[in-house]
Amino acid sequence: MEVEQRSKKDDDLNGSKSNEGEEEISVERIFEASHEIPPPWQKQLTFRALIVSFILAILFTFVVMKLNLTTGIIPSLNISAGLLGFFFVKSWTKILNKAGFLKQPFTRQENTVIQTCVVASSGIAFSGGFGSYLFGMSDIVAKQSAEANTPMNIKNPHLGWMIGFLFVVSFLGLFSVVPLRKIMIVDFKLTYPSGTATAHLINSFHTPQGAKLAKKQVRALGKFFSFSFLWGFFQWFFTSGDDCGFANFPTFGLKAYENKFYFDFSATYVGVGMICPYLINVSLLIGSILSWGVMWPLIGAQKGKWYSADLSSSSLHGLQGYKVFIAIAMILGDGLYNFIKVLGRTVFGLYKQFKNKDVLPVNDRSSPATVTISYDDKRRTELFLKDRIPSWFAVTGYVVMAIVSIITVPHIFHQLKWYHILTMYIIAPVLAFCNAYGCGLTDWSLASTYGKLAIFTIGAWAGAANGGVLAGLAACGVMMNIVSTASDLMQDFKTGYMTLASPRSMFLSQAIGTAMGCVISPCVFWLFYKAFPDFGQTGTAYPAPYALVYRNMSILGVEGFSALPKHCLMLCYIFFAAAVIVNGVRDAVGPKWARFIPLPMAMAIPFYIGGYFTIDMCVGSLILFIWRKLNKPKADAYSSAVASGLICGEGIWTLPSSILALAGVKPPICMKFLSTAANLKVDSLLNAS
Amino acid sequence: MEVEQRSKKDDDLNGSKSNEGEEEISVERIFEASHEIPPPWQKQLTFRALIVSFILAILFTFVVMKLNLTTGIIPSLNISAGLLGFFFVKSWTKILNKAGFLKQPFTRQENTVIQTCVVASSGIAFSGGFGSYLFGMSDIVAKQSAEANTPMNIKNPHLGWMIGFLFVVSFLGLFSVVPLRKIMIVDFKLTYPSGTATAHLINSFHTPQGAKLAKKQVRALGKFFSFSFLWGFFQWFFTSGDDCGFANFPTFGLKAYENKFYFDFSATYVGVGMICPYLINVSLLIGSILSWGVMWPLIGAQKGKWYSADLSSSSLHGLQGYKVFIAIAMILGDGLYNFIKVLGRTVFGLYKQFKNKDVLPVNDRSSPATVTISYDDKRRTELFLKDRIPSWFAVTGYVVMAIVSIITVPHIFHQLKWYHILTMYIIAPVLAFCNAYGCGLTDWSLASTYGKLAIFTIGAWAGAANGGVLAGLAACGVMMNIVSTASDLMQDFKTGYMTLASPRSMFLSQAIGTAMGCVISPCVFWLFYKAFPDFGQTGTAYPAPYALVYRNMSILGVEGFSALPKHCLMLCYIFFAAAVIVNGVRDAVGPKWARFIPLPMAMAIPFYIGGYFTIDMCVGSLILFIWRKLNKPKADAYSSAVASGLICGEGIWTLPSSILALAGVKPPICMKFLSTAANLKVDSLLNAS
Repeated sequence: MEVEQRSKKDDDLNGSKSNEGEEEISVERIFEASHEIPPPWQKQLTFRALIVSFILAILFTFVVMKLNLTTGIIPSLNISAGLLGFFFVKSWTKILNKAGFLKQPFTRQENTVIQTCVVASSGIAFSGGFGSYLFGMSDIVAKQSAEANTPMNIKNPHLGWMIGFLFVVSFLGLFSVVPLRKIMIVDFKLTYPSGTATAHLINSFHTPQGAKLAKKQVRALGKFFSFSFLWGFFQWFFTSGDDCGFANFPTFGLKAYENKFYFDFSATYVGVGMICPYLINVSLLIGSILSWGVMWPLIGAQKGKWYSADLSSSSLHGLQGYKVFIAIAMILGDGLYNFIKVLGRTVFGLYKQFKNKDVLPVNDRSSPATVTISYDDKRRTELFLKDRIPSWFAVTGYVVMAIVSIITVPHIFHQLKWYHILTMYIIAPVLAFCNAYGCGLTDWSLASTYGKLAIFTIGAWAGAANGGVLAGLAACGVMMNIVSTASDLMQDFKTGYMTLASPRSMFLSQAIGTAMGCVISPCVFWLFYKAFPDFGQTGTAYPAPYALVYRNMSILGVEGFSALPKHCLMLCYIFFAAAVIVNGVRDAVGPKWARFIPLPMAMAIPFYIGGYFTIDMCVGSLILFIWRKLNKPKADAYSSAVASGLICGEGIWTLPSSILALAGVKPPICMKFLSTAANLKVDSLLNAS
Repeated sequence: MEVEQRSKKDDDLNGSKSNEGEEEISVERIFEASHEIPPPWQKQLTFRALIVSFILAILFTFVVMKLNLTTGIIPSLNISAGLLGFFFVKSWTKILNKAGFLKQPFTRQENTVIQTCVVASSGIAFSGGFGSYLFGMSDIVAKQSAEANTPMNIKNPHLGWMIGFLFVVSFLGLFSVVPLRKIMIVDFKLTYPSGTATAHLINSFHTPQGAKLAKKQVRALGKFFSFSFLWGFFQWFFTSGDDCGFANFPTFGLKAYENKFYFDFSATYVGVGMICPYLINVSLLIGSILSWGVMWPLIGAQKGKWYSADLSSSSLHGLQGYKVFIAIAMILGDGLYNFIKVLGRTVFGLYKQFKNKDVLPVNDRSSPATVTISYDDKRRTELFLKDRIPSWFAVTGYVVMAIVSIITVPHIFHQLKWYHILTMYIIAPVLAFCNAYGCGLTDWSLASTYGKLAIFTIGAWAGAANGGVLAGLAACGVMMNIVSTASDLMQDFKTGYMTLASPRSMFLSQAIGTAMGCVISPCVFWLFYKAFPDFGQTGTAYPAPYALVYRNMSILGVEGFSALPKHCLMLCYIFFAAAVIVNGVRDAVGPKWARFIPLPMAMAIPFYIGGYFTIDMCVGSLILFIWRKLNKPKADAYSSAVASGLICGEGIWTLPSSILALAGVKPPICMKFLSTAANLKVDSLLNAS
């Protein structure tokens, strides 16, 4: 099982390098030796924790939103959240301590609460679908897909309904996982690699040496944060115009630039590349070479034969259609394969679980406990079960929220009927369970695959005549929010389990985080939406690539394959099959060889948006690779801090940049790249005037 | 006395940070303990040394030529020459040793011989006047100065006469210093900071730890050499056109760019900035702010009042005239002050020397020997005096070369008569002595000041009617070659003295180096001259700024001040006086405060060419400053290697780049910087076509 090569959210291929398991000495004994007793749950959820969470939630929402809207690849930010949370509260307590106001020391439980809250909040930026289903409803995207762009199938984003929608659908996931908590973590002892890694990090911070290392890591993060922020700021000055600035730097020449091969100087994606495993980055690169280097030029040569030469470049009946639908085919092929695989494992695991009625060795790595339970596990289980959340509370909560949602959502989306939603809410807990379980095993959340299922089923059910395209997208939202939240929060519970955080404080913090996210995410999206005039257009700074993909899936589900250009369907079949086969081969040859076989999901991403960000990510890989060669311990200790700094710095620069755009401040300079011939013309123009 | 803040060649403000003196333990005893006996002089001058020298001579000639033709600021490359010489021969011996062919180990004497040969050879690139008097004769420069551009006063560069001219004038300096060798180094015990520093370096290389450090330094140099080379290569692709590429990056905005304030991404000048003392870099920056930030905008506002508004921007009757002549005034003021000062000290020193008839404590730092002579000095003096070069040989050589020169040079420059040259050759040995002595005290060669004296005196003597402008420039060449060579070679003798190199091998190596330089330098210049079509024009990549300055000095000397625009003469007087006063104040307040007072010479350089390279150099200073803050020992050990790497890498890139230009290969892309308004126009043009 190649956890390291897998990703948390399938569209956004994260894949934090988890270093779970293997606690040779008992962590809890160390903490006990230093007389650390977990405070009661009310004390874990402090006011300062909430303030810090709020600040970090905004930060991470900007980051996630930017990633959503540029390429859709989102690395796991749990580590950064833990690190920055530690840093903020540590500075806070230091200042208060000096002023003599310190009432309460900073504990790892509080740290976990902050991390949980931030993850819950910024998770909404992903599951809210601002880069996928939600924005896919807008007329901006509808115009690009050319099909089914009747008013019936269009709903433009607006702050009011977005916040309302998120509020009624986001809390269901929270309630749905609470009863499963004990089963997943205590009974099944699932790994949850990201959650475990975060817990290790937080635990290490609160030991004396750990705090020292954390301080250094924070300094590294801060340095690269500032660098990345300032670099974003500097770049801004040269972007007066469409093809201007470093983001359009034809590093490998103009010909390569036309085929979307260039290094676009994005600190963000260099950082993302440093976090993602080598295999993902290489897969992306291979995908971009295969598509933009080979396939599109070949298909483009058939212009006039396979498709009409009169079409605009963004028409889905032309070359763009091949790009989008072949990518969809690969994504669906990979998704389906893994859905079946993870589901099969889930069922098989459950079957064994209930047959043996004891600790399950499904995943060898996941159960350091043999028959004798370790001291750590005993202590953790004890505290984990102390502050129970009653099941009746969770069930009542789910039912109440479901009723509210069934009443409200059809008012927002007329195309979605109450019985559609009711059906989903009956099935959803099962899927949420499956997803949380699968994620515990593989660190891979299938949320968007479940969302795609909803698109196809509910879209077809509603029917083309009744705005099925929009109904499908809305259903995707309803489904994704439950399923994604379920797996995210279970990861957090695992972190909480390992840091002795009370489930009650965790639950409350998640609830608060979710509420924050329901407000922050739409606002941040709104800022982007209003600030950038060509927002959402293919080929601009914020193409929101998945929005078009999702909309087209919905159209496909409702209207069938009639709209595809010539040979496109055949190519789709081929790539769908290829994705399944490649995955099968990967599993067949075992992890030793699988690490040389690219991931179809990752390969599909550049099909549609181009190869430039894959260059960035490979640069990130290269930097990490060289750094590891030079100084492995240092690289391992600091690379994720450096990467987080790079990602967050440029991410947060989008805040001032969008404010500048809103205020109508234009950058003063255009850094343009002209061919020699064009340059001669331009020079004569400029000299004449 | 602020040796560190001073420079070796006054136009090119080098200022190697010398760490002379203070040998607490006897170096020679260490070498003796390891049974190191200097080989006989014939064995010091090996074949391999000459080959390595030849390769390095070409490298450094490219570097010096590039610096000559871009800004005229040339740092001391002695250290790099020593380092690279060590590296090459060391690799050579290693390979031969493995192959079993090694006949002779690599000694520090051989290292010195290489260093000497390379310095002698690349010194011609400076004293040959390719960036100053020699190129100042061409019609390219004559057109820009608008005055006195009759055929009588123009002589275009051509390989044949340049090589011939250099051969007949360059060897005189060599012969002139030989008889002075013993007086300067053994009797007067002058410091020669650069020479001493180089000797320390070479000595250190040949101790076991030293060799280890040297290896690391070479690796650092190699790394930054490659980086700088590749960076130059990368930049090239984006320079299709005049204002294209990184060299025209408006880092601080377009307004600042118009006033020549921008970071031009030149690795060379960042490296130069790292070698030059902080004070020089800050002086340059202050000078550029004063001129381009304050004065030129103010004078530019008087357009139409002070000077005609119809003039082209490069006319010396307009704003350009103020720039050039105020710079000349400051350079002359500073030069005159220091000429008088150094000359005064020379005379005073000599007076005391001959009065006391013993070791002279002119410069406290320069004589670690008190009355008792140290072991090192004894041993060094012994070896230094062993292989004497007879005085009759030097005198005969000088006279023969002078006769050849007197016969030949008037054939090259008809405007220069035989009696002009004869006069110069009678005075020259005295000036050469003065310069070598002054340089030994202060590390500052006044070669170009002596050259300027020749411009004014011989120019006026020849008279305007007889092509005085050209005569002046040619006379400058004759004079500079002697005087500059004299001080350069005396530095080398000091190095040789301290590394126990035989004076005979040194002399031969210098002679061979000079001969090499007489061929290499004109060829390299010729390559630049032919390769770049807008070579020598103000505002291009190779403006050769001093060529115009020298030519205008000559015009000034011959024709007087009549051509200057309104108020320009007055401003010139003010700045001349200011240069003298500032220098006086610097000397009056003592070194403690002098390091906060800028150097007028350095301030004058950006007056004419703009502030962009001062930004680069200050970036270099800043890097060094931060590096020193972080890790002083490492910064001190590696900074000059890193700087040399940066300088040499981009310097050597000019070789392939000029070959590409000669072959007519144009870079494919223009990276252009347009204002928002211009960009809109350009976009509409490009979309229309």
